[in-house]
Amino acid sequence: MKLSDVGERALVKLARRICKRGPGVRIGIGDDAAAIDIDDKCLIATTDMLVAGMHFPPGTSPEQMGRKSVVAGLSDLAAMGAKPLGMLFSVGLPRGLDVGFVKRLMRGMDLAARMHGTWVVGGDLDESEEISIAGAAFGIAHRDKILTRSRARPGDLIAVTGKLGASSAGLKLLLGRLPIDGYDALIKAQLEPHARVREGMALARSGVVTSAIDVTDGLAANLWQLSKESRVKLIIDRKRVPEHPLVRKFAAEHGFNVDDFVLFGGEDFELLFTMRPRDPARIKRTLARAGAPITVIGKVLRGKGVYLEEGGMLLKLPDRGYEHFR
Amino acid sequence: MKLSDVGERALVKLARRICKRGPGVRIGIGDDAAAIDIDDKCLIATTDMLVAGMHFPPGTSPEQMGRKSVVAGLSDLAAMGAKPLGMLFSVGLPRGLDVGFVKRLMRGMDLAARMHGTWVVGGDLDESEEISIAGAAFGIAHRDKILTRSRARPGDLIAVTGKLGASSAGLKLLLGRLPIDGYDALIKAQLEPHARVREGMALARSGVVTSAIDVTDGLAANLWQLSKESRVKLIIDRKRVPEHPLVRKFAAEHGFNVDDFVLFGGEDFELLFTMRPRDPARIKRTLARAGAPITVIGKVLRGKGVYLEEGGMLLKLPDRGYEHFR
Repeated sequence: MKLSDVGERALVKLARRICKRGPGVRIGIGDDAAAIDIDDKCLIATTDMLVAGMHFPPGTSPEQMGRKSVVAGLSDLAAMGAKPLGMLFSVGLPRGLDVGFVKRLMRGMDLAARMHGTWVVGGDLDESEEISIAGAAFGIAHRDKILTRSRARPGDLIAVTGKLGASSAGLKLLLGRLPIDGYDALIKAQLEPHARVREGMALARSGVVTSAIDVTDGLAANLWQLSKESRVKLIIDRKRVPEHPLVRKFAAEHGFNVDDFVLFGGEDFELLFTMRPRDPARIKRTLARAGAPITVIGKVLRGKGVYLEEGGMLLKLPDRGYEHFR
Repeated sequence: MKLSDVGERALVKLARRICKRGPGVRIGIGDDAAAIDIDDKCLIATTDMLVAGMHFPPGTSPEQMGRKSVVAGLSDLAAMGAKPLGMLFSVGLPRGLDVGFVKRLMRGMDLAARMHGTWVVGGDLDESEEISIAGAAFGIAHRDKILTRSRARPGDLIAVTGKLGASSAGLKLLLGRLPIDGYDALIKAQLEPHARVREGMALARSGVVTSAIDVTDGLAANLWQLSKESRVKLIIDRKRVPEHPLVRKFAAEHGFNVDDFVLFGGEDFELLFTMRPRDPARIKRTLARAGAPITVIGKVLRGKGVYLEEGGMLLKLPDRGYEHFR
């Protein structure tokens, strides 16, 4: 069977089966990041590979490639509630590429890392046929305050930071060469994303958040992952899902389905999380501390699957992920 | 200027200039690995990218690709004297590749990690035109026992673990399709290397080792790096440089220069290090603890450059690195 015939989740399952989990490895393959014991703390570590033809739409500048690579890694750390310690990059580049490109790429990485309160501490540069950037991000967390995907409990509320849909709408604009006028914010969301690092740390500290995942595959796909890993049923109130203000306008103007951006569009780099509902005051404080707007969009029930409540109806949400464009 | 026109060291310099070093970053870009403070310890982290057409000679099995990727990362940790905590892999693969390949690759990674006392804790799998494997390895060390490249001091002895030249001779055999008969050990050194993890940890504990680097670019190139980073002169006694027993025979048989393997061949994954000479007994204990054979090959002097003492002559050793084969 070819790689193109198997989904990412099947490959994660395979990796989980093959790779033995060491004694100090608190969280292994399959969550946003791994967690490894160091005394009373945990090292949180993750890696992501971005390949030019697949992850960077035409028109992405070298600085923006650097930035997105940083954000992809830090967003995983944020979803675990970790404080970043540093990042490493292995970069494959065609030998005919101009050195100026590398300079700009490095500048983008350095600036983005510092914007998120961390540093590029090392890397490796290799010759390859196409531009590919593999970033490794690592951070630290208290071992009893790690946010995984597997601890959502019936009775929890489901919430999300920020607004959804802008990044995939921006991608649509770029790939379709649609008129950008008035939609610069969508392009910016796609090319210059931000990771919710401070917010993730605040959620971890709050003591009321039970699970978290970053919204990179699209809200629907990430809800399904949360549901499967926590073995719970998730019900989302469609009208409460926070949409980026320009997305509905953009979809209407071009005849797109707004759900394709808000529910099924990826790379928003927001945090999707669940929290205990028993102490609303505490949750309010959490929201305030996190800095980002937070919206409660649903609730966790006993059972399985992800459902959308819309106009009094309960519909099963398709488990459809964000497709990269190659 | 094109990337192919600038050397690796120029790019490291560039990265050092562009990427700011954070306050908790004890060792940043340019050593075998980075070191970041965590309480009284240091996280040691490194990344390496291996690209199929450049780092894996024809005939390398998926398991061997996995193994070499593990060893490349762990060897850097070993050169810092760190205890490995885990490894992450970002793997780019063509979509037409068989899933069986991925299974075998993962098995090779898992087995190699466990052979070296550590674990594969996560990864990312992406579509790319060619096979590329970016590994990130991280470990832990006591902050005052990290082995860097920059602390060799005049008066130190220079030593190396194991025997040199086998891996590059094995590469020559494979690329030249030369008769393998009797030279299996050379092939094995190239395709199934081993990282000196326990040895590096023992050297760090010994208290007499002042600097270390792993021999991946070739002895000459790695000596030059040590000389430059420590701002010292290194003098090597050519006849004491430990050669893999088959290398001289192989070179003689095919009319190759043995120095091209022993001095200028790469990927031996041995440790090159310097140590204080004042307490021979202590050094002996270090050697015994390290497990691997260790050979003193020269001495550190005030000054700069790397020189070879051969037949009473002092020759400047060319600063020539190991060329990958693409």
